[in-house]
Amino acid sequence: MGIKIKSRTLREISSISEMKDISQSLRKQNLTIGFVPTMGCLHAGHLNLVKRSLETCDRTVVSIFINPTQFGSNEDLDTYPRQLESDIEKLETIGADILFHPTKEEMYPPGYKTSVEVQNITEQLCGKSRPDLFDGVSTVVLKLFNIVRPHNAYFGEKDWQQLAVIETLVEDLNLDVAIIRVPIVREADGLAMSSRNRYLSPQERQSALSLSRSLQQARDNIRRGTTSAKAISDSIRQCLSEQEGTEIDYISVCDPESFKEKEQIRGRTLIALAVKVGPSRLIDNCIIEEF
Amino acid sequence: MGIKIKSRTLREISSISEMKDISQSLRKQNLTIGFVPTMGCLHAGHLNLVKRSLETCDRTVVSIFINPTQFGSNEDLDTYPRQLESDIEKLETIGADILFHPTKEEMYPPGYKTSVEVQNITEQLCGKSRPDLFDGVSTVVLKLFNIVRPHNAYFGEKDWQQLAVIETLVEDLNLDVAIIRVPIVREADGLAMSSRNRYLSPQERQSALSLSRSLQQARDNIRRGTTSAKAISDSIRQCLSEQEGTEIDYISVCDPESFKEKEQIRGRTLIALAVKVGPSRLIDNCIIEEF
Repeated sequence: MGIKIKSRTLREISSISEMKDISQSLRKQNLTIGFVPTMGCLHAGHLNLVKRSLETCDRTVVSIFINPTQFGSNEDLDTYPRQLESDIEKLETIGADILFHPTKEEMYPPGYKTSVEVQNITEQLCGKSRPDLFDGVSTVVLKLFNIVRPHNAYFGEKDWQQLAVIETLVEDLNLDVAIIRVPIVREADGLAMSSRNRYLSPQERQSALSLSRSLQQARDNIRRGTTSAKAISDSIRQCLSEQEGTEIDYISVCDPESFKEKEQIRGRTLIALAVKVGPSRLIDNCIIEEF
Repeated sequence: MGIKIKSRTLREISSISEMKDISQSLRKQNLTIGFVPTMGCLHAGHLNLVKRSLETCDRTVVSIFINPTQFGSNEDLDTYPRQLESDIEKLETIGADILFHPTKEEMYPPGYKTSVEVQNITEQLCGKSRPDLFDGVSTVVLKLFNIVRPHNAYFGEKDWQQLAVIETLVEDLNLDVAIIRVPIVREADGLAMSSRNRYLSPQERQSALSLSRSLQQARDNIRRGTTSAKAISDSIRQCLSEQEGTEIDYISVCDPESFKEKEQIRGRTLIALAVKVGPSRLIDNCIIEEF
């Protein structure tokens, strides 16, 4: 895959045409491009994706773009955390090659009209409570892939449904990019990394631990022989509800590809949660392997 | 642009992965790829697109794929003409390099879920009477572009609205393909070339001439000073209705980019028609340049 000569400094690009020129030039040199699309406010989960790309690809591109089309009108687009300077520092430290951070106007100029929809796997879980989410994600990811032209793109399994949507998009539209799944990164106490964690008060932070704890309890119960999906989701609901300031959006015990709800835990199973804790809607999930 | 060494024989490809490998290899050799997507049953209009590609690009790929997703349930998918053998002869004679003709199952395997929508310019004209048409066209063209990876793609102006949709798709999704518009090719008597012309009886063929004739009359009337869009569409309606076996789908006097109907013929104007003549739905159009 070519000789690995790392560029020393992070190159910041905001123009689409400049990013395209760079990608084309890297490809002409037979250098592989790894890509980590983000909305910024980078945490250890993001940096783990970047690390994976750095280990495998000749050049690593990270994008920071808070995509307005994936937020609903009542969601937190305006308050979504922004901290470009500290993101840049983190990317410099870890050794990423290129930061692509286009403006909204560059990505969606006046007269913009096109959207992409992945059907059947976007109406459940997060797609149910956030109906604009996955069309927005699919469209922006397709645009970013066309601009960055990566060989590999890295996504975290915390957004499990998003990963399934992007894998389907890539396969259905015959794109030439390998989607690399990376396991959830957690704080020491189990809380899944999220840009929205920073809004939690100490008390809410404590309540938020019930997400990972309830999943761990579910795992334990299944290992001990529970096979009823209802029993599992009831015990998760109880664990979450005991905490102050939590509001459950969904608890799903389902097939990890079709997201069809299960009655019995047979075969590979996804347990996925979305819970509002104070100001932040948090998600978490775990996979029960076939047993 | 590389040295132009033409391959001598038409290469037939039905596998997506084989087509992708060829495109990748051509691009690695710095050869330019011209692409003419068709539904087969090739006529002089198609061959003119191929000729344009042959003149400009190092290699010319023609696809033949009758795309099921762009036909409505009450439309002519089952009877749409198929004549692969004679299409191949024509492509060999003209000197096309590659024929890509995938199966339906190759393009839309079981579990296929993704579609692309271009908004705002797909609800008028043909999009109004054929609501599935443009999502189907956008999706299959995007897939074909991703498979063939052309530098240039050639489309006829007979499908004016389709061209606008594809241009928008390419721009919005940041694709790297130049869309080349090619004027309508007509029979000696004025009938716009169409694969659906073959279904016309001699009498219907005669009636079908009213499409181009009514457009010519509209041009003449505008040149003589008519500025009312209603007067123009009334005179077109009369000319079409006089013929036996015609059933008007739409007559539109509109902006050629937004497809907004005009009251006065000011600025660049599209006059577009769709008329059922016997078994065939025929379309035609002309542009009135700003004057």
